[in-house]
Amino acid sequence: MKTRVDPYEVEGKVDYDKLIAEFGLERINQKLLQRIQKHTKELHPMLSRGIFFVGRDLNWLLDEYEKGNKFFLYTGLGPSGPIHIGHILVWYFTKWLQDTFDVELYFQFTDDEKFLYKDLSYEEVQKWLEENMLDVIAVGFDPKKTHFIIDTKHAGIMYPEAIKVAKKITFSMIKSSFGFNESNNVGSIFYTSMQAVPAFLPSVLKKKKIPCLIPHAVDQDPHFRLTRDILPKLGYYKPASIQCSFLPPLTGSVGKMNSSEANKGILMTDSPSEVKNKINKYAFSGGRSTIGEHKRLGGNPDIDVSFQYLRYLFEDDDKKLKEIRDAYKKGTLSTGELKTYTIKKINEFLAKHQERRRKAKELIPKFILRM
Amino acid sequence: MKTRVDPYEVEGKVDYDKLIAEFGLERINQKLLQRIQKHTKELHPMLSRGIFFVGRDLNWLLDEYEKGNKFFLYTGLGPSGPIHIGHILVWYFTKWLQDTFDVELYFQFTDDEKFLYKDLSYEEVQKWLEENMLDVIAVGFDPKKTHFIIDTKHAGIMYPEAIKVAKKITFSMIKSSFGFNESNNVGSIFYTSMQAVPAFLPSVLKKKKIPCLIPHAVDQDPHFRLTRDILPKLGYYKPASIQCSFLPPLTGSVGKMNSSEANKGILMTDSPSEVKNKINKYAFSGGRSTIGEHKRLGGNPDIDVSFQYLRYLFEDDDKKLKEIRDAYKKGTLSTGELKTYTIKKINEFLAKHQERRRKAKELIPKFILRM
Repeated sequence: MKTRVDPYEVEGKVDYDKLIAEFGLERINQKLLQRIQKHTKELHPMLSRGIFFVGRDLNWLLDEYEKGNKFFLYTGLGPSGPIHIGHILVWYFTKWLQDTFDVELYFQFTDDEKFLYKDLSYEEVQKWLEENMLDVIAVGFDPKKTHFIIDTKHAGIMYPEAIKVAKKITFSMIKSSFGFNESNNVGSIFYTSMQAVPAFLPSVLKKKKIPCLIPHAVDQDPHFRLTRDILPKLGYYKPASIQCSFLPPLTGSVGKMNSSEANKGILMTDSPSEVKNKINKYAFSGGRSTIGEHKRLGGNPDIDVSFQYLRYLFEDDDKKLKEIRDAYKKGTLSTGELKTYTIKKINEFLAKHQERRRKAKELIPKFILRM
Repeated sequence: MKTRVDPYEVEGKVDYDKLIAEFGLERINQKLLQRIQKHTKELHPMLSRGIFFVGRDLNWLLDEYEKGNKFFLYTGLGPSGPIHIGHILVWYFTKWLQDTFDVELYFQFTDDEKFLYKDLSYEEVQKWLEENMLDVIAVGFDPKKTHFIIDTKHAGIMYPEAIKVAKKITFSMIKSSFGFNESNNVGSIFYTSMQAVPAFLPSVLKKKKIPCLIPHAVDQDPHFRLTRDILPKLGYYKPASIQCSFLPPLTGSVGKMNSSEANKGILMTDSPSEVKNKINKYAFSGGRSTIGEHKRLGGNPDIDVSFQYLRYLFEDDDKKLKEIRDAYKKGTLSTGELKTYTIKKINEFLAKHQERRRKAKELIPKFILRM
């Protein structure tokens, strides 16, 4: 099966080792984890469990931090559909980083990107933008330290900076980074320049060089590799990054979750019965085909989607997770029981998220970056 | 000699007949001139003398005007150097159109374009922008009906519209329109989308379809051909245009005047003695090599730069122009006398322009489009 990982396509089973070699990423090893832990006391489960597993320049970032040169966080979203649990993985981790390191977050909504790349009208993208902002706010970011950048609404400050990036990127660079060809539209060709801007915009606004840390899923790396090449030429630091693997889709560990195929993913607005139905009906099981066989031979948690969801997002307790893993491998925990537990955990999580989401609309103005 | 005419290169002697055929332009014939004259009473010399000589959809524009559907004017400038008399040709004609038809003008300053295409820093382009605005104001446009659009400063309203254009333009279209290749930067590839926006921005702002007339030099036609293809797809009228030939450079009727080669052009800030020196020293003469020969055989006004400057811009009086032409052809007017007269006329023109220019700075805020 073909493997392809870039922001516009994730196909096939992702071979992360190959990706690390190909992209030139740095593995987050024990030594680095210990260094992070010096500052955070606890390690976030997504770090200790290897979900955020690679990065760039993280040691440099900590050097600067230890010298008193605080970084800011930059992450984002392209609004083109409902938010699913694959999206919020990065954001909940980003919130932890914000709280733990006490840093500013610039959150970019790339409504231009989604309009330019997808078969969506401008109005449809704007509708998703309004919806998606609610989910970002529901994560619980601190409005005093969080700034939403909306590419079209903040174009007044974004475009003048983006052209400085664009002047340093040729079409052939874009071609080799994203596999574009001559039938791509000229907006999509320009777009990566807009995605580069938040990595140095705070340095522009505050008139000093500030280190940047970008938490993101590994498929966005091509954008930021280009950004890293160009920012030093404009007098800014290369942004550091911390990158996660993809939350598997319900149907199994292939590709990344896609909100346009709703039945593949659990949405942040799903009701308890929708979650129950999706997990029971679609969540790929690592269990055996009969209960007897399962009890005798045990299941495989590594390919079991319910278990992976617990591991990625919904089970904070390491001890509990290990118990589930061991019992599932031994066969004392059945697929049905595992699914029931996962449904309960997801629904508890969603209930809290949805409660914050209901109060989010009135908070939007507090989050929009002042121009 | 090779001929090449597009916004980024004008080389060789321009064969306008070939251009008309190649670009698919419409000649402004007697019938059209008469139709224009019905509305304007007098014909501007640049029309009667065939300096504005081609256009697109001018009859349609007049149909709409006669139905009470007024057009707006759109023209512009890329700020990358001092303003010379080649630039202001279009603007003085545009002012006449504004006054005569009593219409709004949107004047675009494409500072992004010049930054992206030229070896100029962002700051240098901004410096030229400030300077160049003074010359545009000095033309005498009505501040109540004239709106400056500065691409970087108005990016907040320009970029969201530009991406709608950009989505409909592929790289291969740009390649064939402008002769670009893969080493062009991605900003320059995107840029034509920004140049398309003022042709429909008033329709966006006023929430109704308004016809647009673009006065411009013939080299800008490739931008607007693309614009004309795309605007109907976005629900707007194709912009009409009225196009002029190039004012010849001092050294003769080849190419268009270029402000980066200062000694080829007369600048709007030149002093009387600079004008005198440039005309005397550089203005290509259609006269004979000796006075005796000139008196016997006569000169050729068609290739004489001084005469052409009078014809294009500095001699409003048709009768006087004809007298000069006849005398020069006959040989009773020498090159020296023609140059002396031309210097006087240019300096009179510049004196008035420069007086208005000195008062222009404080007027800038009145011209900037409100957002």
